Amino acid sequence: RVNGDRLWDSLMDMAKIGPGIAGGNNRQTLTDSDAEGRSLFRTWCEAAGLTVGVDKMGTMFATRPGTDPDALPVYVGSHLDTQPTGGKYDGVLGVLGALEVVRTMNDLGIRTKHPIVVTNWTNEEGARFAPAMLASGVFAGVHTLDYAYGRKDSEGKTFGDELKRIGWLGDEEVGARKMHAYFEYHIEQGPILEAEEKQIGVVTHCQGLWWLEFTLTGREAHTGSTPMNMRVNAGLAMARIFEMVQGVAMSEQPGAVGGVGQVLFSPNSRNVLPGKVIFTVDIRSPDKEKLDRMRARIEAEAPKIADSLGVGCSIEAIGHFEPVTFDQKLVTAVRGAAERLGYSHMNLISGAGHDACWAAKVAPTTMIMCPCVGGLSHNEAEEISKEWATAGADVLFHAVAETAEI
Amino acid sequence: RVNGDRLWDSLMDMAKIGPGIAGGNNRQTLTDSDAEGRSLFRTWCEAAGLTVGVDKMGTMFATRPGTDPDALPVYVGSHLDTQPTGGKYDGVLGVLGALEVVRTMNDLGIRTKHPIVVTNWTNEEGARFAPAMLASGVFAGVHTLDYAYGRKDSEGKTFGDELKRIGWLGDEEVGARKMHAYFEYHIEQGPILEAEEKQIGVVTHCQGLWWLEFTLTGREAHTGSTPMNMRVNAGLAMARIFEMVQGVAMSEQPGAVGGVGQVLFSPNSRNVLPGKVIFTVDIRSPDKEKLDRMRARIEAEAPKIADSLGVGCSIEAIGHFEPVTFDQKLVTAVRGAAERLGYSHMNLISGAGHDACWAAKVAPTTMIMCPCVGGLSHNEAEEISKEWATAGADVLFHAVAETAEI
Ligand SMILES: NC(=O)NCCC(=O)O
Ligand SMILES: NC(=O)NCCC(=O)O
Repeated sequence: RVNGDRLWDSLMDMAKIGPGIAGGNNRQTLTDSDAEGRSLFRTWCEAAGLTVGVDKMGTMFATRPGTDPDALPVYVGSHLDTQPTGGKYDGVLGVLGALEVVRTMNDLGIRTKHPIVVTNWTNEEGARFAPAMLASGVFAGVHTLDYAYGRKDSEGKTFGDELKRIGWLGDEEVGARKMHAYFEYHIEQGPILEAEEKQIGVVTHCQGLWWLEFTLTGREAHTGSTPMNMRVNAGLAMARIFEMVQGVAMSEQPGAVGGVGQVLFSPNSRNVLPGKVIFTVDIRSPDKEKLDRMRARIEAEAPKIADSLGVGCSIEAIGHFEPVTFDQKLVTAVRGAAERLGYSHMNLISGAGHDACWAAKVAPTTMIMCPCVGGLSHNEAEEISKEWATAGADVLFHAVAETAEI
Repeated sequence: RVNGDRLWDSLMDMAKIGPGIAGGNNRQTLTDSDAEGRSLFRTWCEAAGLTVGVDKMGTMFATRPGTDPDALPVYVGSHLDTQPTGGKYDGVLGVLGALEVVRTMNDLGIRTKHPIVVTNWTNEEGARFAPAMLASGVFAGVHTLDYAYGRKDSEGKTFGDELKRIGWLGDEEVGARKMHAYFEYHIEQGPILEAEEKQIGVVTHCQGLWWLEFTLTGREAHTGSTPMNMRVNAGLAMARIFEMVQGVAMSEQPGAVGGVGQVLFSPNSRNVLPGKVIFTVDIRSPDKEKLDRMRARIEAEAPKIADSLGVGCSIEAIGHFEPVTFDQKLVTAVRGAAERLGYSHMNLISGAGHDACWAAKVAPTTMIMCPCVGGLSHNEAEEISKEWATAGADVLFHAVAETAEI
C-alpha cells in the first residue's frame, strides 16, 4: 500500500504554489508559478533517486531504472498546470500519485523489470494556449512542434517564447521515447463515482471533443442612436447560437454535452454594439458518430442564424480528439488491482480529455479515477478526500507494479 | 461664417493624439492620450485669447470675456474623450466647433455682451468609467464628487486617482459656475439626417436611458465531464436574457432601443462553464413611461429566466438619465440660424446621451447636429464631410452670437 499521508502532504505543498483566490490554484502553463511548481517537482524526483529529462515541449520525464536494460519503460503521469481558477487535484494528483508509486517502491525495496517514468506533461489544460493536451499531442505526432510553438495566449505571447522564458525548454526530441505502457490517475471531474458510492473508476473510454471557435462580425455602432432595424448585432447572434448549441446537445442525450466557456466582445464597451464576438463551443461525446453529427448540425445552423441578422460567421476547429478506447489488458490490470485491494469500483467513460487520450495513440494506455465532491472541477472549490486519493494511488501502484513486472 | 478649413485642420490635428487601430481614435478618459489632447486644446484656447479654468472633475472652461461684467456666460462645448474604438468626431466636433465660433468672432472683431466659455467635459463616454456624462452629472448635482472619484475602471483604478495622475485635477468647485445658456454641437451618431438629406438637426429632445448591470451566478464546472442536467449555466442564462431584452425592445417599437455592449465571462476559459457572467443592458426611449416600462419588464423577466436554470441574478442600475426636452427659445434660435444661413434642417431627438442632458438641469440648453455617414458612431470608421462639419458650426456660431448678444 502507498503512503496516503505523504501523498496528501505533497499535494498540499504543491498547492501552495500559484494559489488561487478562493482556496484553489492559478498555476497556468508556462507562467512563473508553473516554473516554480516544476522545480519543486524536480527536487522531489531527485530526492527519490530519479533522473529527470526534459523534452522540447518542456515535458518532464523522471526515470526509475528497471532491471532489464532492454525493457521499455512504463510511463505514469499527468500534468501540474491548472485552469485560471482551478483546483488542487486536477492533474496534480496524477503526477504526485505516480511519484508516490515510486516512493513506495523505494520504501519497500521493490525493483521492476521495466523502468518507470513519472511524467509531467506541459499545457494539458489548454486554458492559456489552446488546444488542451498540447505536449502529449506533439508527443503522439498529432501536432507539429512548430504548430505548438506558435500557439498564442490572449496577450499574443507564444508558447515557444514562454517556454524559453521560464527556462524549461529541454533538449530531448519530442516523441523519441517509446513506451511499454502509459497510466494516468486523475480525479473524475464528474459526479458519477460519488453518486454511485464507488472508490475507483476503471476508465474504459474517453469521450471525443471538438472546440469550434466562432468569429461573428457585426457592425460596431452606438447602442443609443442606432435603431433596432439598422443593427448588425453580433451579440444577439452569439446568444442565438448559444441557444442552438444547447438544443443540439439536449437532442443528442444521453451521451453528449455542449456549452460555451469563453466569450470575447469587441470593443466590449457598454454603449457600443459589438463589431466582433469571438467564442468557443465545446462539444463532446463518447460516440464518434454523435460527436461529428453535433459538429455538422452546429456548423450548418450557426451561419443561418448569423445570416438572418446580417452577421458574418466563420468557424474554426481549434481543438479535437476522437473518442478513445483504452487498452483492454491494462484496463483488466486496473480492475484486478481494485478487486485485490478490496476497493469498490465501476467502469467509467472519461468526460474530460487527458494526456492519456494522445498517449493511447502510441502506447497501450489506461486511466484510473477517484471521485471528487459534487463532481466539481475547473473550480477552485474542487475537493477530494485523503481516503479517495489514497485508494486510487494504491490501485495505480498495483497496476503499475504488475505491468512493469516486479 | 466660420472658417471650415481651420475647423477641419484642428479636428485632424486632435485625431493624431490617441490614434486607434483602424483610422479612428482610442483616447479614453484620464489616459495619457487624454492628457495630451487636453494640453493641445489648452494651447489652442490660449492662442485664441481665452482664459482656461479647470474644476475638480477636470472639466476645462476656456473663457472669452463679454462686454457686460454682470452677464452670465454662454457655455458651448462637448467632450474630447473617446470610446476604445471611437471616431474622430464624436464629442471632438462640439469642442473644436465651439473653439471655431470664438476664433471666428476674433477674426471678425465681434464682441458679445455675455462671455462665451468653450467647454471640455471630462468622461462623457463612460467607456472607461461608468456612467457616461460623469463630470456634467456632478456639475448638475446629479452625482456627488465622492461618487465620481470612486468610479473604477476594469483594472480597479479609480477616477479620482487617475484624474490626479494625469495632472488635470483643477481647483474650481464643480457646479459653481452659473450659465446663461448651454449649447452643444454633435454628430448625429444615427442615420436620420443623412437619409432625409438634411444638413442640420434641430435637436428638440434627448431620449432617456437605463444601464442595468447584471451579475449572473452559475457554478464553475468542467465543460466535458459535467452532464447537461447538472449544469448551473450562467452563460446560457445570459443568452436567454439577451433574447428577452431584444424581444422587449422590439415590442416597444417605435421609439425604443435595447441591447448589450459589454459581457464579461469568469473565468473565461474554453473548458469551464462560467461561474459568473457580468453584462450591461442598455435601454433607451424618448418616452419616459416606455423607458421605465422596459426596465420593469426586463427586471421582472430576467430573474425568472435565471431561476429556471438555477442561476443567481442580481441587477444594478449603474446609469440613468430621463428623457430631456430642450429649451424652446434656444431651439428656435438654432432653427432660425439654419433658416437664415440657408441650410436644410429638421427636428431631431438625440438617440445618444450628451452632457447637454445634464446641463439642461441647470441652464437653458439645446443641441445642434450634423449628419454622419451611415449613421455610424462608436466605431473607428465614423465619418463626416468637411461641408457637414462647417454647416453645423455656422449654425452654432449664429445661435451663440444671438444668445450671447452681439
Ligand atoms: N482533464 C482536463 O480538465 N483536461 C482539460 C482538457 C479538457 O477540456 O478536457
Ligand atoms: N454621445 C455619446 O455617445 N455619449 C455616450 C453616452 C451614451 O451612451 O449615450
